[in-house]
Amino acid sequence: MSKGTVVLAYSGGLDTSCILVWLKEQGPVGQIRPREVFIEDLRAEFVEHFIWPAVQANAVYEDRYLLGTSLARPCISRSLVDVARREKAHFISHGATGKVRPDCSCFFFQIIAPWRIPEFYNRFKGRLDLMEYAEKHGIPVPVTPKAPWSMDANLMHISYESGILEDPKSHAPVDLYLMTKNPEEAPNAPDVLEITFRKGVPVKVTNLKDATSKDAALDIFLYLNEIGGRHGVGRIDIVENRFIGMKSRGIYETPGGTILLQAHLDIETFTMDKEVRRIKQGLSVKFSELVYNGFWYSPECDFVRHCIQKSQENVEGTVQLSVFKGQVYLLGRESPKSLYNEELVSMDKQGDYDPCDASGFIRINAVRLREYHRLQGLSSPKN
Amino acid sequence: MSKGTVVLAYSGGLDTSCILVWLKEQGPVGQIRPREVFIEDLRAEFVEHFIWPAVQANAVYEDRYLLGTSLARPCISRSLVDVARREKAHFISHGATGKVRPDCSCFFFQIIAPWRIPEFYNRFKGRLDLMEYAEKHGIPVPVTPKAPWSMDANLMHISYESGILEDPKSHAPVDLYLMTKNPEEAPNAPDVLEITFRKGVPVKVTNLKDATSKDAALDIFLYLNEIGGRHGVGRIDIVENRFIGMKSRGIYETPGGTILLQAHLDIETFTMDKEVRRIKQGLSVKFSELVYNGFWYSPECDFVRHCIQKSQENVEGTVQLSVFKGQVYLLGRESPKSLYNEELVSMDKQGDYDPCDASGFIRINAVRLREYHRLQGLSSPKN
Amino acid sequence: MSKGTVVLAYSGGLDTSCILVWLKEQGPVGQIRPREVFIEDLRAEFVEHFIWPAVQANAVYEDRYLLGTSLARPCISRSLVDVARREKAHFISHGATGKVRPDCSCFFFQIIAPWRIPEFYNRFKGRLDLMEYAEKHGIPVPVTPKAPWSMDANLMHISYESGILEDPKSHAPVDLYLMTKNPEEAPNAPDVLEITFRKGVPVKVTNLKDATSKDAALDIFLYLNEIGGRHGVGRIDIVENRFIGMKSRGIYETPGGTILLQAHLDIETFTMDKEVRRIKQGLSVKFSELVYNGFWYSPECDFVRHCIQKSQENVEGTVQLSVFKGQVYLLGRESPKSLYNEELVSMDKQGDYDPCDASGFIRINAVRLREYHRLQGLSSPKN
Amino acid sequence: MSKGTVVLAYSGGLDTSCILVWLKEQGPVGQIRPREVFIEDLRAEFVEHFIWPAVQANAVYEDRYLLGTSLARPCISRSLVDVARREKAHFISHGATGKVRPDCSCFFFQIIAPWRIPEFYNRFKGRLDLMEYAEKHGIPVPVTPKAPWSMDANLMHISYESGILEDPKSHAPVDLYLMTKNPEEAPNAPDVLEITFRKGVPVKVTNLKDATSKDAALDIFLYLNEIGGRHGVGRIDIVENRFIGMKSRGIYETPGGTILLQAHLDIETFTMDKEVRRIKQGLSVKFSELVYNGFWYSPECDFVRHCIQKSQENVEGTVQLSVFKGQVYLLGRESPKSLYNEELVSMDKQGDYDPCDASGFIRINAVRLREYHRLQGLSSPKN
Repeated sequence: MSKGTVVLAYSGGLDTSCILVWLKEQGPVGQIRPREVFIEDLRAEFVEHFIWPAVQANAVYEDRYLLGTSLARPCISRSLVDVARREKAHFISHGATGKVRPDCSCFFFQIIAPWRIPEFYNRFKGRLDLMEYAEKHGIPVPVTPKAPWSMDANLMHISYESGILEDPKSHAPVDLYLMTKNPEEAPNAPDVLEITFRKGVPVKVTNLKDATSKDAALDIFLYLNEIGGRHGVGRIDIVENRFIGMKSRGIYETPGGTILLQAHLDIETFTMDKEVRRIKQGLSVKFSELVYNGFWYSPECDFVRHCIQKSQENVEGTVQLSVFKGQVYLLGRESPKSLYNEELVSMDKQGDYDPCDASGFIRINAVRLREYHRLQGLSSPKN
Repeated sequence: MSKGTVVLAYSGGLDTSCILVWLKEQGPVGQIRPREVFIEDLRAEFVEHFIWPAVQANAVYEDRYLLGTSLARPCISRSLVDVARREKAHFISHGATGKVRPDCSCFFFQIIAPWRIPEFYNRFKGRLDLMEYAEKHGIPVPVTPKAPWSMDANLMHISYESGILEDPKSHAPVDLYLMTKNPEEAPNAPDVLEITFRKGVPVKVTNLKDATSKDAALDIFLYLNEIGGRHGVGRIDIVENRFIGMKSRGIYETPGGTILLQAHLDIETFTMDKEVRRIKQGLSVKFSELVYNGFWYSPECDFVRHCIQKSQENVEGTVQLSVFKGQVYLLGRESPKSLYNEELVSMDKQGDYDPCDASGFIRINAVRLREYHRLQGLSSPKN
Repeated sequence: MSKGTVVLAYSGGLDTSCILVWLKEQGPVGQIRPREVFIEDLRAEFVEHFIWPAVQANAVYEDRYLLGTSLARPCISRSLVDVARREKAHFISHGATGKVRPDCSCFFFQIIAPWRIPEFYNRFKGRLDLMEYAEKHGIPVPVTPKAPWSMDANLMHISYESGILEDPKSHAPVDLYLMTKNPEEAPNAPDVLEITFRKGVPVKVTNLKDATSKDAALDIFLYLNEIGGRHGVGRIDIVENRFIGMKSRGIYETPGGTILLQAHLDIETFTMDKEVRRIKQGLSVKFSELVYNGFWYSPECDFVRHCIQKSQENVEGTVQLSVFKGQVYLLGRESPKSLYNEELVSMDKQGDYDPCDASGFIRINAVRLREYHRLQGLSSPKN
Repeated sequence: MSKGTVVLAYSGGLDTSCILVWLKEQGPVGQIRPREVFIEDLRAEFVEHFIWPAVQANAVYEDRYLLGTSLARPCISRSLVDVARREKAHFISHGATGKVRPDCSCFFFQIIAPWRIPEFYNRFKGRLDLMEYAEKHGIPVPVTPKAPWSMDANLMHISYESGILEDPKSHAPVDLYLMTKNPEEAPNAPDVLEITFRKGVPVKVTNLKDATSKDAALDIFLYLNEIGGRHGVGRIDIVENRFIGMKSRGIYETPGGTILLQAHLDIETFTMDKEVRRIKQGLSVKFSELVYNGFWYSPECDFVRHCIQKSQENVEGTVQLSVFKGQVYLLGRESPKSLYNEELVSMDKQGDYDPCDASGFIRINAVRLREYHRLQGLSSPKN
């Protein structure tokens, strides 16, 4: 390793605390200057630039995972790269292991990922080695007893994995969850929310029970987390496919994100043309995959985000929903831009619509089917 | 209309009761022979040949609707066509209006759809005209007071629409649902089920609380309906896009189907290769669309069903889940055919896996990204 | 039919000549005012607003058809609707039969399509009936003997179908083609062209043999037609699937469009990121289908065109190609925005690239495959 | 490196000749036993098990490349793995560099890829180092003067790349091509072929000029290569995107494959339902990508091949085509299983088809468009 400034993504946990000292040991890194600790409040940025696009996309990985960790990574990387540029650093270092989703966000810099360097991972075979190293070097380590699993928490979600959770048939302990209440102990009465969207993102939430109302992005999200958390919303226990080809078991709780997914799905279907929606949903699947795989900063993800955003221009209106015992129920919706036409669809009114046309429509659709069956010798007695 | 035998899909409701008499009036139809009423129990066939393929597909239309009505139609059509062939009929008649999803299943026969024939729909402008006609012709009609909405019930679900539900912002009345309990009144303790799958379909369900166990297809489905119904599972309120281009509001309850969707998603992800799954999920979106649009009996739906079925060969294993207050929670899963490798994924064991490889993997993935950013003049200070 | 102004898309052929008089006969139409014949030169608009987006998309229907007729229809419709609006017309009429691709472009207006109206098509069973009618009403008709097929010509292509061509195994007559020379009689030396693109559309073409150069959109396209026509480029004989479900045999010649497709494919792959390109190609398939089916003026086609256009921002550069005996050969390309990196790809230089990484990349890609084969008991002797 | 038997994929060229000796030098490899040279004729297997599935798929990578090299790799790997298993080898070695498409086919074995090992690639910086090493060790090397590009030839194609071709704007030298004649010097009269397909693969080819006929898979392919080669068919010059993210320039000639692609496209569209075809074409794009990226032996490629094969059940019939000056022209086709219905499509016959239906079909398709435009305030003067 050549000499130069290293910017380390430091969580304060055991791993990165040890890495900090280990990097210093490696000579090239030189002196650690304590003034250079940057602590930034990225919460509003995280909500507006990362969670909101995911809401617009209805982003769900493998039909279930709402991407809480995946969305946070590019947000952190962006900040990390900013710091590295400002500091004219030569290296970026992080504590991710070789088995988690690698991230391509920092590719401008040389990366030092000790958990992928033999000198490091052969020296520190497990937690005990790290503890011993910490003690020897006077590294302060978290004193809380270690849970028999690992967790990753951010504004959007908490994920739990490894340890006793690695056995995919073991049930999650009741006391695992920190962000959501156990639905069994959740209130016996629902909260009813009204959420207003503009261009596919929430711009206001009101609780109809107590008239609480929020309209700043971060406030909206925090409030939905609070309500969702109170009612035990957004817990899932899944096995997912990591980018690097392993299956891994994860337990997640994403209270606010789960409410928003349901609310956005509803207002989107209400206001968007169905064929546009089909195309957009295909792009969303791609988006979710890209985000999961660490490709937020890629030309294809830029492109897909642009297209999805374009699709949201008319996604505007208000939904009412209730939150209760772990569930979100849509109750109703309205929009100045809906393609829903009550008169057209009504069974009691004929409106502009000629029922005869349906017969022509069906017969034309059947032209092809008839030929196919004719060929197969499956024609009816009559024909 | 030329003369000939008509087979009418008769529900016993007001519409088809009137159509029955009206068809007779039209002369060509001739005498209605009372012996020719066919009542068939299609429940097992419905479950095995229509619901099971939907379970294998994780079939969901527009991310939310589980296709209860759409799956029943080809099952009914098949039976209808069988009767028509046996009876050497010339026409098939049904009471579907021009605004609902037209069905291409019966295209071998000439269809008489009175609600799409001006002579009929101009004569019967609304319910009152039908009532009057029924009275005049001595047609017995349902005496139960008409709910201010219409519903369609089958083994898989009940759908509610039109009437007061046509206003998309109106909330569903509390007493609307017939198949599921209100989650607020559901039991305060969960049921825990164990469901075993083979080739992607459930072959056994056991209730761990009372050891109830079912292993015939119809029994399994009925039992899941019972448990799901008891806990208020599977209620949704959506606006969907009909085949004919209208948006329409529907409320559905699909208790057993909702449990199976969650269970199958889990065992499938656990046992199926991730890339196969991606391709298969694309086919499933197509499948759902085809079923919704009435193309069950089409070459493309045959093809897609074949491919999906092929993908299910190794979808085998058992999931445990709890059902509580409207929610289904996956608790754990095991399988003799899982691609999950506990040792491989473990954070505590290195196994066969060399963490160095992850760095090479990332760097190769970044080759393309680097070139892209180089071109955009976005290179880092260092490069 | 109620009274009101009709705008008729009039080609001057036998069909629309007769329709003109027949419409007058129908009473409601009233007087035909001869001053109201609008002849508009839509050529530049056709090239810039319809052909260019197709070039950006690499639009090809069912892998072979370059959509010459399909692209012209929305261009004509737009003009027709403009006239109809200006004239405050109530109806639009056209001579399309019921078996050709119906077009949804004019849906604001009531359409009078005589070939789909029983009164008309039952009266005029064939060409002879029309001829007789024309004679009786003093309608001047084309005197040229009718070819035993029908053709549709525009700036982009000529299509030939029906008549003797309806037998799909019959060969096209040698003298069929009007826009391209028979390759057997084409020049024995190629023309070499240089085409420059900006944002995915050609902005200049130069013939390296004689230095002819064009840079206005219409001129470029006309010149490519001339060169392509001279060398017999762009002839195809296909069976295609019409929107309405029939298979139909068509013979097309699209000289300039074929050259542009090859040239654009080349410059696009040269300048566009590969993952963006994959997504964009999926959108292009959709675009081609929409255009073929008559949905140019639809929300989904608007959306797709927007996305495709976005993808073209960096599609810029120059290709050289030769045109000879029906073929287009790419010879070379250069671009200020290419992602091609000669040093990176070179076999003789190592550049920034570490060959070790490839091994890590492969091993990570194989993690999943190894698990799959392990499960199948297919492991190697060694493992 | 641990000791054990190595199986080397040996081409006889300079690289693998040196690798052979170098491996021996590395100690662990031990003695090279000369009896163990396996030369196998894989030609028929290559055609039947690799080229035929590609023909069924219409496999084309990035719209242009017919995958000649990519298809040969799994064929070679299969044989290599067979030998390695038979010989109870521990390693497989090959001469591929780090910049070419890595192949995941041999993942059961430990791979020794010297061009990705620093000890090797740092020692042999270029061709000269290898030559010197060869001389020193008495390794016989090809005496033919080295062309200023590299080539890879197999039964299906020859590819040319690197060297002077690395400049993407340089034209290919006239004397580059070895498998196809220069179209300028090709015969002045076409050959006309008749190719018969069953289940999507060619089962017979007949030259209508001289009645030559072939019906064994390998013979058919060789004959098509001969005819295509004679007429200069299948030359392309492209820039493609490699799996590892680089753009690379390649020149290919694929005479027989190009004829088959055109012939198969035609018979497939003639016999396959259009909606099946759309789904199948999506799978084919995936298939081409997988093959290109070296994933022939993967669960997803198995799955996709199975689905594509299923789609070919009715792809049966005969096409006539002419081959001339680099071009393939379809002339006609017939099939006992075509969905083409001459009577149905005829403009002169009405057949079973009611033109009225087309109007209903259009109006229903326009329901959605009308709502969309209504919302945008774009309604016509009349509405």
